[in-house]
Amino acid sequence: MMNDLFFSPDPTVKAIARNLYEGVKNLPLLSPHGHTDVRWFAENEPFNNPTDLIVTPDHYIFRMLVSRGINLDLLRIPRRDGSRAEGDPRTVWDLFAKNFYLFSGTPTGLWIQEELKSVFETDIPLNEKNADILYDHINACLKTSRFLPRSLYERFHLELLSTTHRATDDLSWHEKLARSGWQGKIIPCFRPDDVTDICQLDWVENIRKLENLTGENTESYQGFIHALRARRKDFINHGCQSTDHGVESPYTHTLTDIEAEKIYSRALMGKASQEDRQQFMAHMLMIMANMSTEDGLVMQIHPGVFRNHDKKLYEWYGADRGADIPLQCEYTRNLKELLNTYGHHPNFTLVVYTLDETTYSRELAPLAAYYPAMHIGPAWWFNDSFQGMRRFKESVIETAGFYNLTGFVDDTRALPSIPVRHDFARRIDADYLAEITARGILSQKEAEVIIQELAYGLTKRVFHL
Amino acid sequence: MMNDLFFSPDPTVKAIARNLYEGVKNLPLLSPHGHTDVRWFAENEPFNNPTDLIVTPDHYIFRMLVSRGINLDLLRIPRRDGSRAEGDPRTVWDLFAKNFYLFSGTPTGLWIQEELKSVFETDIPLNEKNADILYDHINACLKTSRFLPRSLYERFHLELLSTTHRATDDLSWHEKLARSGWQGKIIPCFRPDDVTDICQLDWVENIRKLENLTGENTESYQGFIHALRARRKDFINHGCQSTDHGVESPYTHTLTDIEAEKIYSRALMGKASQEDRQQFMAHMLMIMANMSTEDGLVMQIHPGVFRNHDKKLYEWYGADRGADIPLQCEYTRNLKELLNTYGHHPNFTLVVYTLDETTYSRELAPLAAYYPAMHIGPAWWFNDSFQGMRRFKESVIETAGFYNLTGFVDDTRALPSIPVRHDFARRIDADYLAEITARGILSQKEAEVIIQELAYGLTKRVFHL
Amino acid sequence: MMNDLFFSPDPTVKAIARNLYEGVKNLPLLSPHGHTDVRWFAENEPFNNPTDLIVTPDHYIFRMLVSRGINLDLLRIPRRDGSRAEGDPRTVWDLFAKNFYLFSGTPTGLWIQEELKSVFETDIPLNEKNADILYDHINACLKTSRFLPRSLYERFHLELLSTTHRATDDLSWHEKLARSGWQGKIIPCFRPDDVTDICQLDWVENIRKLENLTGENTESYQGFIHALRARRKDFINHGCQSTDHGVESPYTHTLTDIEAEKIYSRALMGKASQEDRQQFMAHMLMIMANMSTEDGLVMQIHPGVFRNHDKKLYEWYGADRGADIPLQCEYTRNLKELLNTYGHHPNFTLVVYTLDETTYSRELAPLAAYYPAMHIGPAWWFNDSFQGMRRFKESVIETAGFYNLTGFVDDTRALPSIPVRHDFARRIDADYLAEITARGILSQKEAEVIIQELAYGLTKRVFHL
Repeated sequence: MMNDLFFSPDPTVKAIARNLYEGVKNLPLLSPHGHTDVRWFAENEPFNNPTDLIVTPDHYIFRMLVSRGINLDLLRIPRRDGSRAEGDPRTVWDLFAKNFYLFSGTPTGLWIQEELKSVFETDIPLNEKNADILYDHINACLKTSRFLPRSLYERFHLELLSTTHRATDDLSWHEKLARSGWQGKIIPCFRPDDVTDICQLDWVENIRKLENLTGENTESYQGFIHALRARRKDFINHGCQSTDHGVESPYTHTLTDIEAEKIYSRALMGKASQEDRQQFMAHMLMIMANMSTEDGLVMQIHPGVFRNHDKKLYEWYGADRGADIPLQCEYTRNLKELLNTYGHHPNFTLVVYTLDETTYSRELAPLAAYYPAMHIGPAWWFNDSFQGMRRFKESVIETAGFYNLTGFVDDTRALPSIPVRHDFARRIDADYLAEITARGILSQKEAEVIIQELAYGLTKRVFHL
Repeated sequence: MMNDLFFSPDPTVKAIARNLYEGVKNLPLLSPHGHTDVRWFAENEPFNNPTDLIVTPDHYIFRMLVSRGINLDLLRIPRRDGSRAEGDPRTVWDLFAKNFYLFSGTPTGLWIQEELKSVFETDIPLNEKNADILYDHINACLKTSRFLPRSLYERFHLELLSTTHRATDDLSWHEKLARSGWQGKIIPCFRPDDVTDICQLDWVENIRKLENLTGENTESYQGFIHALRARRKDFINHGCQSTDHGVESPYTHTLTDIEAEKIYSRALMGKASQEDRQQFMAHMLMIMANMSTEDGLVMQIHPGVFRNHDKKLYEWYGADRGADIPLQCEYTRNLKELLNTYGHHPNFTLVVYTLDETTYSRELAPLAAYYPAMHIGPAWWFNDSFQGMRRFKESVIETAGFYNLTGFVDDTRALPSIPVRHDFARRIDADYLAEITARGILSQKEAEVIIQELAYGLTKRVFHL
Repeated sequence: MMNDLFFSPDPTVKAIARNLYEGVKNLPLLSPHGHTDVRWFAENEPFNNPTDLIVTPDHYIFRMLVSRGINLDLLRIPRRDGSRAEGDPRTVWDLFAKNFYLFSGTPTGLWIQEELKSVFETDIPLNEKNADILYDHINACLKTSRFLPRSLYERFHLELLSTTHRATDDLSWHEKLARSGWQGKIIPCFRPDDVTDICQLDWVENIRKLENLTGENTESYQGFIHALRARRKDFINHGCQSTDHGVESPYTHTLTDIEAEKIYSRALMGKASQEDRQQFMAHMLMIMANMSTEDGLVMQIHPGVFRNHDKKLYEWYGADRGADIPLQCEYTRNLKELLNTYGHHPNFTLVVYTLDETTYSRELAPLAAYYPAMHIGPAWWFNDSFQGMRRFKESVIETAGFYNLTGFVDDTRALPSIPVRHDFARRIDADYLAEITARGILSQKEAEVIIQELAYGLTKRVFHL
C-alpha cells in the first residue's frame, strides 16, 4: 500500500494519522454485509481470468465505461437470457485498460490500483500499453493456489464474510461449504425483497418457491408469514446474523391482518396496485422488525434507490448493471412507527443506510442519537469514498457520537477489493480522527480508542459477530 | 480554555486565527435568544447539586445516554405528572460520568469539558473514576456565592440574556426580578406557539388563560387578536425585543377574517383539522409579522422539527426530552407571501433558522441576499458545533455576505454552558475567517472587522439590543 | 492577479497548485454559455460609464445592495417601461463604493477587486473614499480603444463567446456582426423558454412573432413545431451550437400529438392550466432533445429556480433583478423518460446544471456516470464560487469522474468579469486537484492532464466548439 495514501499533507495531522493507522492496519477484517458469491468458496476453483474476476461482476466499473459510450456487449456482460456477446475476455480487458483513465479521482480507480499492488503484487500501471502484460500477470496468478478463493479469504485476514441471499435461495452452497470442513466463516444474510415486494415481475413464482422450500401454504397471508419465519430459521441455522431490506422508501406501517390479507390476495391475482405495494412493504418492515425482536437478527435497511432506471438495459441485461440511481429519502416520518414500536426493544438492532446525504445530519444522526435500537450504517455505495466518508463523519458524529455507528461495512461484490476497501476505510478514519485531534476536538487517547472501534469493535458488537 | 482549541494545525492559519480570536475573546456576551430560567435570577438561590444543574435540564445530554439504553427514570428526569424516579442525584451523576465517553467528538462533550475547566476551575477529567471527586467539587462550588445565578451572569460577562416564554406566561418572575434592583439585563422573548397552534392538547385551556391575563374576550377570533397584541405589549413592558415561532413548516399565508374566524371557532369546539391547523399557523405568522411592523419586535422562526417523535416518552415525560427530530424544510415557496408583504418594510426584521442544512445555499442565503428584512440565524441546535458552524458559513456567506447574518445566538437551557458556547463560536469563526484569509479571499483587515461583527456587532444591531 | 489567491496555505498543496495553475493560466477562454450582449460587439461603441458597465447589468451586485435596504431606483435600474429614476451614474457608483464592504467574502466582491486590477490596471481599493477616483479612472479607460468591446474580447484571449437569445430574437445583431468582418467568434445559443412556457404573460405575442419570423402557421401545434425547427436552423446558420432551457422542473414526458395539440389550443385561448404548462414543458424538453439528435445542438437544462419571487419588484422592474430564488429539484424520476429515450443516442449531448447541491452526489453524478449523453454542468450562479466549486467537485467526481463533466462555463452578463471568472475557476481547480494529489488520490501526471481538460479540453469537446 502507498504509505500515506489519503493522509493530510499537513505534517501535524499526518503524524497523528500514521500513528492511528498503525494501530489498526493489521486488525482482522469483518465483512458483515456484502455481495460476493459463496459458491467461490464452496467450490474453491481458480477464477477464470482477470476480466471475469475484476470487470464482469463489478457494476462500479462497467457503468463508467458505459457512460463514455462503451456498450455492455462490448464488455461481454451476461444478458438476461444467460447469453453473452461473442468475444475474448482479453479484448474486454484491453478496452478496460485503455479507458482506465476515466476512473481518475474515483474510488474504483484507486481500488483497482491498490489491488494490483497489494493483491497481485505488481507496480505496473494499468493503461493501454500495459494491458496485455497485466492480463498475463494476473492470469498467471490466478492459476496458482495462492489465488484460490479460500486462499484469498485467508490472505486477506478475513474473520467473517457475509453473503447476501434472496428468501428463495436454498443455501445449498452454504450447505456444501459447511460440509467441506474449511474453517473460514462465511454466513448468509437474509434479504427477502424477492418475496416482500409484491410488484416484482417474478413475485408469484418466488412465492411458489417459498412454499416448496418451507412446506408452508403460501396461498394464504398467514402461511406466507410462517414461511418467512421458517426461512429465517434456515438462514440462522447457516450462521445468519442479519436481514437486509432494499426498499424504495423506508416507510413503516403496520396493517391489520385483514388489510394485509387483502393486499396479499390481490397480489396473488396479479392485481396489486402501487399503493398496495407501498403499504405491504411498510408492513413487511414492521413484521421483519418484530421477528428480529424474537430471533435476534440484526435488521438492515438500504432504502432510496430507483432500481433499473434504464428500462431497455434492464430488459436485455437484468438487474445490477449500473443503472440504479438514488432518490431523495425521508426517515423522520417514515421510520416513526417502527422506532416507536421497537426502538427501545432490548433484543432489536436496526442498521439504517442512506444514499441521500442530506439525511445524515438532519434525520439519521438525531434518530440514532435517541433510539437505542438504531445504528447508522457507514457511507454506502457511491459514498464509499474519501470525500463520501468524510462527509459522513463530519455530518453524523457531532450529533450521534461514534457509538451509534456500526464501523465499516464493505458491501462489495468484487472479492479482491475487500482488503483494499477496509484498508482505505481505516486510512480515511485515521486521517479524519487525526484532523480533529490536531484541532483539540479529541484527545490522542480518545482517537486511539475510537479508531479501534470503527475498524473492528463496533462492527463486532453491532452485528453480533 | 485550551489555547488553540478548534484552530487549524496549519501554522499560517493558526497564527491568523489566534490573532482574530484575541480581538474578540473578551467582548461581552449577548444572548438574544435562549431557554434558561428567569426564576434562577429572580430568586438567586444556590443551585441544588451538579446533577440538577448540568444533567437534568439538558436534553442534549440525556438523549445520548438514552441512545445507548439508559432510560430516563435511571436519570431521574421529571415525569409529566411532576414525579421523579426514586434515587440519588449522585447516582445519576455517576451514570453520566461512566458514560461520558459516548460524547467523544460531540459539542456536548466539549462544552462539559470546558465548563469544568473555565467555570468550575478544575482539570480533573470526567470519567467513572473521577465521578465522585467532581461531584463533590462542583457541589462545594455551588454552595459559594460565586456560583449564585446572578454571580454567574456577571462572571460570564453577559450584557443581556433573553429567556423564552409562552404567550400565557404571566412574566411574574421577570416582574420580581425587575423589582429586585439587580442590574443584570434579563428580558423575555414572546413565543406564542401555545396559543397559535390550535391542535395542541391544552390549546383551549391556553386560550382561557390568555383571556384571564388580558381581559380580552377570546371566544372570538377578533378578541384573540386583541389579546395577542395586549400580550406583546406586556412583554415589551418587560424589555422584550423579539418573538419566536416554533412552527413545523414556515408556510405563510393570509386568510380572510372570515376564514380565520371559522377555523378559530372549529378549534374552540375541538373540531379543527390538520389542514385547519396548517392554514391557521400560516396566517398567524402573517399576523405576527404585521404586528412586528407596528411594535418593532424582531420576528424569529425556528421551523422544521417533528416534536415528540417518541409518543410513549412524550406521554410519560412530556416535551423537550431529546426526541425532537428535524424534518426537510422548504422556504422559497413558504416564505413568499410573508416576504412579498413585509420583506421591504423598514420596521421589520425577520430572523430565520433551519435544521435542514440543504436550505443554506439553496434558499436561505438567496432570500436573505435579496430581502432587506431577512437575516439568517446561526447554525442551530444539532448544528451548533464545529462542523455545523463551518458548513453554515461555507454555504451562506458567498451568497449572503456577512451582513445578512445575525451573529451568534446560544439558544441554550444550560446556564454554565453559555460562556463556553460563545467562546467556541468565536474560536470557530476565527478559524474559518483565518482560513479564507490565508487563501486571500479576505484581507486581514476585513477579517478583523468581520469577527467583531459576528461576535457582537451584528447581534446587537439585528436584535435591536 | 494576486499570486496565490485561493490556494491552500499548506506548502505542499500550494506548490502543486501553483504548478498546475501555471500550466493553464494562459490557455484561451471558451465561453460556451453566457448572457453578454452581442450588440456591444456588433456596434463596438465605447461603454457609457463605469456604472452602466459594472453595476446596472449585474443582478449579483444590486441584489446585495437591495438586501441592505438600498432600492432599485436609487441604483437607477431600468424599469419595465424603459424609464429610469432621475440621477447621475456617478451617484450610483458612489453608493456602490460606499457599500462595497457588503461583498466581503463573496465571489462578486472578489470579481470586482480583480477586474479593477487586471482589466482596469489599478490597485486602488474600492471604498467610499476612493469612489470618485476610481470612477474617473475607469471612465477614462472606457474612452480608449483598448476598452472597446472587441478589444476587450481580444485582450481577454477569448476564443469563442456564446450569447443567449429567445426563440423570437431575429438575430439581427449577430447578422450585423457577421457582416462586419471582425474575426471574433460570437455565436448565439437558442433558448426557447419564451415560446415553450405557455403561461408566460407574453406567450401569445411570442407565438405571433415566431410566425412572423418563420412564416410557419403557429395557430396549429404542428406549425409551432415546424417553426421551432426553422428557428433552430436560423440559429445554426449563425453558428449556434447549443440550446438552453430554463424550466422550473426538469420533468420530461412525451405527450401524444393529440394531447399536445389540445394543450396548445387551450394556451392560445389563454385557458392553459398550471398542469397543462407542466405537461407541455415536459413534452417540449422531449421535442427539443429529439431535434438535437437530428441537428446536433447540445441541449442544456438550467432548472429549479423560482423566477421573480418578489411580485411587486417584477411588476415594476421586470425579470432578472436579483429576486430569483432556487427550489428543491429532482432529476432521477424527472429525467427518466428523456434519458431512457435519448440517453444512449450517439448524436445527443445533454448538459444538466443545478442550484440544488443535494442532487450532486445523489442524482446528477450517478446519472452522468451511466448515461453516455449526459454531462454535468459546472457549479452554477450562486455556486460559481470558491466553496461552491469545491462542493461541486467533492460531490460529483468520485462517482462521475472528470470526463462526465463539461469544464468551466462562465454564464455571465458582466463582460469585464469574464477573464476573472475563468482565472478563478482555473485557480480553484488547481487548488482542489493539488489537495487530492497531495493526498495520493491523483498522481501529479493525472492532475496535469485533468486541469487542461477542465480549463479547455472538455469544454471544447462537450460543446462541439
